Order: sequence, then structure tokens, then C-alpha cells
Amino acid sequence: MALNEATEFPTLVETEHHTDAKAENLLSAANLEAIQDLRANKFQTRRPTVQALEEVLYKPFSVLDHGFVRVVDYMGDDGAVVQAARVSYGKGTRKLREDHGLIRYLLRHRHTTPFEMCEIKFHIKLPIFVARQWIRHRTANVNEYSARYSILDHEFYMPAPEHLAAQSTSNRQGRGDVLEGDEAARVMALLRDDSERAYAHYTEMLNENAEGETLDESRTGLARELARMNLSLNYYTQWYWKTDLHNLLHFLSLRADPHAQYEIRAYADVMIDQVLKPWVPATYQAFMDYVHGAASLSAGGLAVVKRLLAGEAVEQAGSGLSPREWRELMALLERDG
Amino acid sequence: MALNEATEFPTLVETEHHTDAKAENLLSAANLEAIQDLRANKFQTRRPTVQALEEVLYKPFSVLDHGFVRVVDYMGDDGAVVQAARVSYGKGTRKLREDHGLIRYLLRHRHTTPFEMCEIKFHIKLPIFVARQWIRHRTANVNEYSARYSILDHEFYMPAPEHLAAQSTSNRQGRGDVLEGDEAARVMALLRDDSERAYAHYTEMLNENAEGETLDESRTGLARELARMNLSLNYYTQWYWKTDLHNLLHFLSLRADPHAQYEIRAYADVMIDQVLKPWVPATYQAFMDYVHGAASLSAGGLAVVKRLLAGEAVEQAGSGLSPREWRELMALLERDG
Amino acid sequence: MALNEATEFPTLVETEHHTDAKAENLLSAANLEAIQDLRANKFQTRRPTVQALEEVLYKPFSVLDHGFVRVVDYMGDDGAVVQAARVSYGKGTRKLREDHGLIRYLLRHRHTTPFEMCEIKFHIKLPIFVARQWIRHRTANVNEYSARYSILDHEFYMPAPEHLAAQSTSNRQGRGDVLEGDEAARVMALLRDDSERAYAHYTEMLNENAEGETLDESRTGLARELARMNLSLNYYTQWYWKTDLHNLLHFLSLRADPHAQYEIRAYADVMIDQVLKPWVPATYQAFMDYVHGAASLSAGGLAVVKRLLAGEAVEQAGSGLSPREWRELMALLERDG
Amino acid sequence: MALNEATEFPTLVETEHHTDAKAENLLSAANLEAIQDLRANKFQTRRPTVQALEEVLYKPFSVLDHGFVRVVDYMGDDGAVVQAARVSYGKGTRKLREDHGLIRYLLRHRHTTPFEMCEIKFHIKLPIFVARQWIRHRTANVNEYSARYSILDHEFYMPAPEHLAAQSTSNRQGRGDVLEGDEAARVMALLRDDSERAYAHYTEMLNENAEGETLDESRTGLARELARMNLSLNYYTQWYWKTDLHNLLHFLSLRADPHAQYEIRAYADVMIDQVLKPWVPATYQAFMDYVHGAASLSAGGLAVVKRLLAGEAVEQAGSGLSPREWRELMALLERDG
Repeated sequence: MALNEATEFPTLVETEHHTDAKAENLLSAANLEAIQDLRANKFQTRRPTVQALEEVLYKPFSVLDHGFVRVVDYMGDDGAVVQAARVSYGKGTRKLREDHGLIRYLLRHRHTTPFEMCEIKFHIKLPIFVARQWIRHRTANVNEYSARYSILDHEFYMPAPEHLAAQSTSNRQGRGDVLEGDEAARVMALLRDDSERAYAHYTEMLNENAEGETLDESRTGLARELARMNLSLNYYTQWYWKTDLHNLLHFLSLRADPHAQYEIRAYADVMIDQVLKPWVPATYQAFMDYVHGAASLSAGGLAVVKRLLAGEAVEQAGSGLSPREWRELMALLERDG
Repeated sequence: MALNEATEFPTLVETEHHTDAKAENLLSAANLEAIQDLRANKFQTRRPTVQALEEVLYKPFSVLDHGFVRVVDYMGDDGAVVQAARVSYGKGTRKLREDHGLIRYLLRHRHTTPFEMCEIKFHIKLPIFVARQWIRHRTANVNEYSARYSILDHEFYMPAPEHLAAQSTSNRQGRGDVLEGDEAARVMALLRDDSERAYAHYTEMLNENAEGETLDESRTGLARELARMNLSLNYYTQWYWKTDLHNLLHFLSLRADPHAQYEIRAYADVMIDQVLKPWVPATYQAFMDYVHGAASLSAGGLAVVKRLLAGEAVEQAGSGLSPREWRELMALLERDG
Repeated sequence: MALNEATEFPTLVETEHHTDAKAENLLSAANLEAIQDLRANKFQTRRPTVQALEEVLYKPFSVLDHGFVRVVDYMGDDGAVVQAARVSYGKGTRKLREDHGLIRYLLRHRHTTPFEMCEIKFHIKLPIFVARQWIRHRTANVNEYSARYSILDHEFYMPAPEHLAAQSTSNRQGRGDVLEGDEAARVMALLRDDSERAYAHYTEMLNENAEGETLDESRTGLARELARMNLSLNYYTQWYWKTDLHNLLHFLSLRADPHAQYEIRAYADVMIDQVLKPWVPATYQAFMDYVHGAASLSAGGLAVVKRLLAGEAVEQAGSGLSPREWRELMALLERDG
Repeated sequence: MALNEATEFPTLVETEHHTDAKAENLLSAANLEAIQDLRANKFQTRRPTVQALEEVLYKPFSVLDHGFVRVVDYMGDDGAVVQAARVSYGKGTRKLREDHGLIRYLLRHRHTTPFEMCEIKFHIKLPIFVARQWIRHRTANVNEYSARYSILDHEFYMPAPEHLAAQSTSNRQGRGDVLEGDEAARVMALLRDDSERAYAHYTEMLNENAEGETLDESRTGLARELARMNLSLNYYTQWYWKTDLHNLLHFLSLRADPHAQYEIRAYADVMIDQVLKPWVPATYQAFMDYVHGAASLSAGGLAVVKRLLAGEAVEQAGSGLSPREWRELMALLERDG
């Protein structure tokens, strides 16, 4: 069965900080061939099919230094959202609204169940510390490469120099300025040396190399499920991750947010631009307007906006908002406050 | 967009107790045409595709007197389960096991996440009291036809004579003998008359008929969201119901069980035979062996089986089991006990 | 065990349109006694305990004509939310923020997991058509009174005259004017007569009355799981419904919304005022400001607000918004547009 | 508010391989005091209260070398399960069954929803690689200590000598013999040295020690969300983990299974013995009989058992089972096969 031939994961060869355009160049010859075989599939189907997504099916999009995202299956399209909404709203809707407007209406009014009718399945390679954030999204199906049964690849994440951020002094959540000079060089050296040493000792304890070959016949080798604990959190893992469109939008709204850590945001950004947009263009547009680019006004914030629009000079003191809430509102409205 | 043409639900014309072979004959000409249009789709895809399921895609399978089940989309196949399992189990598995054996192994050992990698979407027409049981399965996506916005069809469930069961006297859960003679006739007459009257008054209160035409210009008409409360629980509703293969198996294991109410079991049986089997034949076979046809032995029950196999004459009194547990075990083993 | 004495549900005696203050008067003497016994419990516990919620524990709050809501157990308080947030945010937060401000911050920035640390369990009596909307919230635990095994009570919902709304002509979702005069009288008569007849025939088919007494020794009686299908959707059912605070807030935000059907909104309103407020007062206040009373601005809507604040005269034509979006924004800002 | 005083996690002082009886001795004076304060709580409540669980409320049970499990809140008891079941089963059940038998019946017949009516909240300290397995159980609420905002403690897991297992040669899943002599000593040295170095470099990169004090005023310090990636998977993290009783049983059935990795099984075993048993003794007993100690027979396996009981000499060849399935069945029945 042709499909099962693809169970070997494509492994990006080791390199750093490549551009997206070079993603395919990074694949080993063997993996590139497996993907090409899958892309040569030509099945006939009666199912809704999105040609723009078929274009990129199975193709890896490069993220960070060794990570990638690729779509390996999908179900449904914008039309499936519309179809489901019209079941709930009934016969009348067909005449009343254009599909595009209906999708905007649904997202604007939090009618989320029609978006659950589409499903998508990704194959993702990502550092373990990113995977630990990601997995907190519970409404998804996951099969992760198991370091209990298999040997992890010798690939770890090294931040690009421009992402080597200091701890923010003003904001416990964000990053501060970028480290430079000797301190930057020292951090990079520590990260690299410790990562390399961790892997060397990992294989030594296993008494196996990455290909599963025994290193020293006189030794037994530690169980894989134990040896893995010596690896650091910047090592790459990979998984299949499958979710419905509603939960994908929720994930993207949280993880493409400026408050999200850069390393997970990098994945979310690629998924929005390279996958969401070609797959469900109407939903993508509504998402950008009503979720990604939208803002929430509290009851108090809305009252302030109304007073400002009425020409009143409102200040924090008389606004009913706390200083922090006031600052956030003024930043949103791009006013000096 | 061709897909959206299908948002009109196919409505089976009113009839009773037809056989499955006649299902298509029951469709109105208009709906039959919509389905035929969809079935004429010939898209090219790189996705895993199951020809045996494509054969029946969009086709309604008749259930009860006016209900149906039809598959309207799907994602994945047996190969997707194998692929996901091999991610978790790692490179070694490829050589060690046949696909078929691997699927059996997964189901036997409750490794359920690989089955979550397949997804299926049904369009189902079912009586409201069946829908109320069905919806208790929470790990599914649902869009139901809304009687808040639309007018429900004039279709209600009437049990076939052979399913007009009395309350069981020995078992509060099961059904007893079938009602016959005058009592059966009286029950059928009550059910039919009350259902007809409920619908007549429903449209009268709405001041609209099923086509949305006003009945009496001098009246206003009650809101749909209120008028619906006059309908009885045997009226048919319909929904899109989407779930992954693991949760589908769980649903089927509970609802195709002899303890399930006949009216929901009728749906589960059709889904097993007409959908699960052609879609994922290896999973189907493993399901029949390891779930549907399997039995659980308690710690105490297992101890009894071992003693019996050792030739010991065990009786309830010395078995460590309660009388009820003993009876259930003897029934399972088909022994007199 | 005292607890199990309470498994008999308190049944409100039949009456209509009572006020909340009279709720206890509606209980039968037997049920009132069971509740009083539970309320006499005085256990000592080390767990977080909210005296204001203990005050109303087990007490039914009347909703609609025969429905009620009562809290039968709970876990956690505002402090549990704060405690969980401080695990995630770490040691620093303790000094930085007051509890109250932290809870507001969490809700404002969609940090929802700390709210999942509280749990509440309700006993609710509600019409079946309301239960069908309610159950769509999947992240809750439910045990419903089973009409498969037991006989439903003879209680059905009749709208109060002021809620007997016509279908809205402008808005497919909302209700229009209230029906009056002959049409109202006719609707009430139809609803009442059909409901009464449905129950009479239900017990006749069962050959049992509500107390489980056989009506006619010469007949067998239809199985309960079948006879129930003759009841209409305004009949009352009841269930235990348990959820965490995050999902409760989500439920309340959708069901206390003006777009929700009145009959479910009536429950949500009681739960906000009588339960949420005494249980978690800080969360309640933040919820009112940041969720219940908040508004979302789309990217385009936010741009319009900024232009208006800058003194520009914006009209729909040049706003980038559709006419519908424009109308919704002007309504939000209470401007003529 | 007394509760919030407890937001400081109790930190076990560094030590190795202590016995359970010594758990409290390991706490620092400050943390012991915080727990003692909470244990001094004496609130009056009307809620179901389990004295045997109150006995151990807030007390840490030691697991592995630095981990612990402690219950910090709970809701419900065996009586809540019975109460919920009797709602579903109706009035009749009250007379028919004892509580204990009803709970056994529910578990035997997979009636799981009544067990969802109880809830429990743990505070758990565990190695990151264990947390990564644990989090795959999605139906739980989690708040984890964030290494994005805070500095992780200097505590890592070192296997006890008797758990330093080799990779199994016969079974890819299980562990093999225990490493001994020089190889064991070398593994322990590598694990310890790498862990120590990782932490030293972690704080160097942060330019902060575990108390948050700056190490070198001339440097800036790497952001915490980045520096954490240098830590290895045996470092301890901690979280609040809250779930309902049904999902707790499911977790325990999978994680207390002999196939589970020892390091997570150690937690599951403690939770069964120290928490489940005192909290819900009837459910505990039914769980041991019907889940933990139970076995599943496939359709084919059941057929073999029946033939054996009838005195037939069955061998694998004519059994209808694969060699692997046959071996598993014979192992279950403790027969030579």
C-alpha cells in the first residue's frame, strides 16, 4: 500500500537559519523521494477538494532551524462551514446571504460549531519546549514520535542571533533587548556544548548510535525510556497533530498573538500564511478581521469610548478603569491617554 | 460552488418499514438529483482515498421508518492508523509487524490514539428521543437542523409491530414480549393520532405550513422557537455528526450492544456494516474480535475460570462472586452454573 | 448514609408563574424535609469553603413555571483561581498584584486555565427543549433522569402570557411582538390540551400511573423506553450538571446573551445572580466587565473607531465595513451612523 | 485570606531515595509551616465530606527521589456516584440494590457517567519526562509551574540502582535486566554530571540564581523562556492537576499497568493506595476487581475458553488465534499452551 511507505519521517538535514525557499533542499535524498512518491498520488474522489491546498500537500514548510510544518491530510473546505451553518439556520439562509458574508457572520457572533466540520492533519517537527506549550491545547489528536521506543535524532534548536533576547525588565512576560557581544557568544557556546554533550552521553548510555548499531559489545545499554532523560528541552521531537478548523483558529489566535513566545509563534505564523489561507480563504479573511486583528472592549472600556466619541475629555481618574486597564485601552486606541 | 448546492437535505418521502434496498426509491426527485450531482463529482486528490467508501459516498442507508445514515466526507484509512502507530512505536515496527497484525495489537492493548487520526462525517436523520441518547457522546462535532429557525418536517417514528415491546418484568432495562392484538392496535392508534394532532397544531400555532406559507393572514403566528415545544419526541430531526475513528468505535461498541435501545442500535448496526467495514476493513475486523465480540473478566471471574480449567468443581457459594456476578459469568461461558 | 437519603428529587408541586420568593412553598412536604435534612449537615472540613454559597446550598431557585436550579456541591473559590494563576506566573506575582486585580487580568487576557480549578454541581429541572440546547455544551458532566427506566412527572412548561412571542419579521433569530387576544388564548389552549392528552396517553400506554401502579390488570403495558416518545418537548426533565468555572462562564456568556432563547436565558440569569455572585464574587465582577458586558471590535471596526476619535466623519461607504457590520458597530457605539 | 498563603509550593529538600514514612521530614521548615496552617483549617460545610481523605488533605506523599503527590481539594464521595446513578436508573433502584453492589454494577457495565460526579485536585511534583506522558490525558485541568516566568528548582531525577534497567532484548516496550558494576556507575555519573552542568549553565545564562539574585551586574541575562531549554528532561516540574473520578480511574488503569513506565507507575500506585482507597472505598474495591485486575477476552479467546471448559484439547494451530494472541491468552490463563 503506497500510503504506508510514507511512515518514514522526512528528516531535514542539519543546517541553520535557512530561508523558507530552501526548505526542500534540506531534505535528505531518501526523504525527498518518499514525499515525491506521495505527491505523485492521483486518486479520484467525490469529496470536497481544495486545489490550492493539494498544491502544497505533504510539502514541508521550514520553521526555526530544523523544524517544519506540513499538511498530510485534510477534510472539508469553506463550503463545509457554510453547509453546516445552513443546517442550523435552516432553509431561509440560502437566499439571504452570500457564503462569504455568512462565514463572517458566524465568526463575528461566535457561532463556532460549523467550523468544527473541517479537519486537518499536520506533521510537525518542533523543539520539546515548544511541544510542551503546544500540547496544552487539549482538543486535538496527537501521535508523537516516542523516545521510549525509538532513538531521537541528533537535532537541537539554537536561537538565531536576533532572537537571543534578554529577560524583559519592565514586563515579566515579554522579551527584552537582544544579547550582544561576549554575552551572546557565551550563551551560544553554552547551549551548543551542552546540547552536543547531552547527545553524546545519550548514545553512550544507550550503547547505540542513531542508526541503532551497538557501540560496545561488552556493554548492555540503558533502556531508551531512561536514557532520553539526559536530553535537553531544545531537542527536536515530531508528531502528527490533527484538529478541527474551530480549534485550529483558537490555537492560532493564541499562538500567533504578540504575547506568545517567539518560537511557537513562528509555527503559528507559517500555519496561517501557508495553510489556512489556501485551504479556507473565506474563513482566513474573516479570522484576520474578527479574531486575529480584533480587540475586546470591557464594559468600562466601551463606556469610555462612547464618552470620547461624544467629545468628552476623559482621563484615567474619572474613567472607572484601573491605571493598567486605562493604559491598555489607550494603547489599543493609539492615544496618548 | 457545486458543494453548496447540496445544502438542501434529501428528504425521504413518507413510507413505512421499507427494506434497505429501496432506500433510493424513497427520495423525492429533487433530493435524488442533488445527491446524484454530488456523486458525479470527480476531483483529483493526493489524499488517502478509499474506493469502497467512495462507492457509497452521499448515498443514504435507510434506518427505521423515515431515518437514514449517509457518509458525506471522510479522512484517512487503515493506513493512517498504521502510520500514526509507527510514529509512536518508532522505526523498528516497520519490519516487525504486518499492518493487519499491528492494528489488532493496538486495539487489543488499548493504544487508542492512532485511531484518532481518521475522521468521518455523517448526515443522519433520526427521531428526537434517539438524538437525545446519541448526543451524550460528547467527543463529536454536531450541527443539528434547528427548529428554532426552521420548520420541522412532518415525519414521526412509528415502531414496526415486531418492535412494539412490553416493559420487561424481569429486567428493568430490557424489553419484554411484543404487544399483540387490541393492546397493540390501541398503542399504534394513540401514537399516530397524537403525533398527527401535534403537527397540525404546530403549524396552526406557527400560522405557516411546512413550506413556510402563511395560513391565515389575520393572525401573527407564534415564534418557531416556541411552537416546536408542541411536537413529540418521536418527530424526526437531522444533523451532521462528525467524529474520529476511535470515538466512532466507542460509540458503536456501546450502541450496537444488546443492552442498547433497539432504535439507536438500528443506526449503529447500519454504521458498522455499511460504513465501518468498507472504510477501514482491518480495523473493522479487529473491532469485531476485540471489542464488539469481546468479554471482560473481573479479577474474581478470571480466578473462577482458572479453577474450572484446572478441573475444580466451582459453585457460586465458594466462588467469591455475588449471585448476580456468578449468573453473568455463567451466561458468558454458556454454562449452567 | 445521610447523603443517600437525598436521592429522591424534590418535586415542585404543580403551579404556574410563581415568584422566586415562593420557591420553597412549592415543594412537597416530603421533599422539603429531605432538603432540610441535608441543610442540617454540619461537617468539618479543611477544604476551601465559601460561606455565602453554603447559605444557599441545596436550596432550589425557581425558574419558569416548574423548573429550578440548585447547587448540590462545589469545590474551590476565588482563592483557588489566584493560587493556580500564581503557579503559572511564578513567585513574582505574589508581590505584584492584588488578588482582585489578578483575576481581572486573567479574564481580560484569556488566561482561562486557572478558572478550571473550581468546580460546581447543579441539580436542574428544565423543559426538554431547553435541555436540548443546554446539552450542546460538551465540557460538562451530566446525569439525566432516565425516561427509559422511570416514569416522567406530569409537568410541562406553559409560557407566561408576556413570553408568548410572535415570530420576528425582521430578524429570523429574535422574537417579535407578544401574541394577544384570541390568538394568544388559542395557542395556550392548544399547548395545554395537547400536553395533557400526551400524558394521559403516555400512562395509558404504560398501563401505569406516575406512582408505578398498574392501571388495568388485563393489559401488559408498553415499554417505558417506547412510551416516552409520546411526550412533547415542553415536558420537564431533570439532571445533575457539573462543570468547572471556566466552562460555566462560557456557558453563561452565551446563554445569558440577549440572542439566547428566553427560556434558557432565564436559567442563566438565575445562575449568575444567585450562584456565581455569592460563590466567586471577584470572578463574578470581572465576568460582568470583561465578558458579559464586553464587546468585540473587528480590525475594521477598530479602524473606524480610531478615525472617529480623530474627528473624521466616517460613513459606511468609506468605512471598509459591510452595511450589516456598519449597523452592528453603530448600534454598539449608540450612534446614528 | 488564609488560602492564598498556600500559593508557595512546598519544596522537598534535596535528598535521595527516602521512604514514604519520612516524607514530612524532607520539607523545609517554611513549607511545613504553610501546610500545617492549611491543615489547621476547620471550616463548617454542608457538603459531602470524607473524613478519611480529610486526614491526609494537603499532606505530601513522597514519590521517586524528589517528587510528591498531595490532594489539595476534592468534591463528592461514593454516595455521589450512587446518587447520580439513581437519577439515571430512576426510583426503582433505591429498593433494589445496596450502594456497594450498585457501584460494582456500574463499573462492570461501563456506566461511567456517575463517576464523573466526583472531582479531585492534586498538587504533583514530577520529572519533565513523566509530565510529558501524563499530559496526554486530555480530560483534566492543569496549571503547571511556568519556566517561562519563573526559575525552576535545582532538582533532578536520578534512578535508584534497582531501577537502572537495560533495554529489553525480547520486548521493545519493557525493561530488561538491571545494569550493574562499572556500566551502572558510568551511567549514574553521566546523568548526574550532565544534570548539574545543565543547571549551572542555566543560572549562568539567566545571570540569576534560584532565589532571583543577579550574579554579575555587568551582564544582562538571557530571557527565562529561552534559558530553560538547557535543562534536561529529568528536571522536576510541578502542577495542579484536577480531574473527575471516571477519568482518574482511566488514568490509573493505564498508568498502574505493568506495561507503563516505572517512573509514572510509581505515581499511579501511590494515588491508588493513598488517595483512591480512603476517598471512595467502594469504588476502589470495584476498580480493583473490574478494571485493575480484570482481563479482556477477544471473541476468539472466549471461544477457546469455552472449548477448553468443555474438555477439548485446543492448540494454537486450531484455535483461530495468531501465535502472539495464543501466547497472550495462555499467559492470562496461566497455562502452558
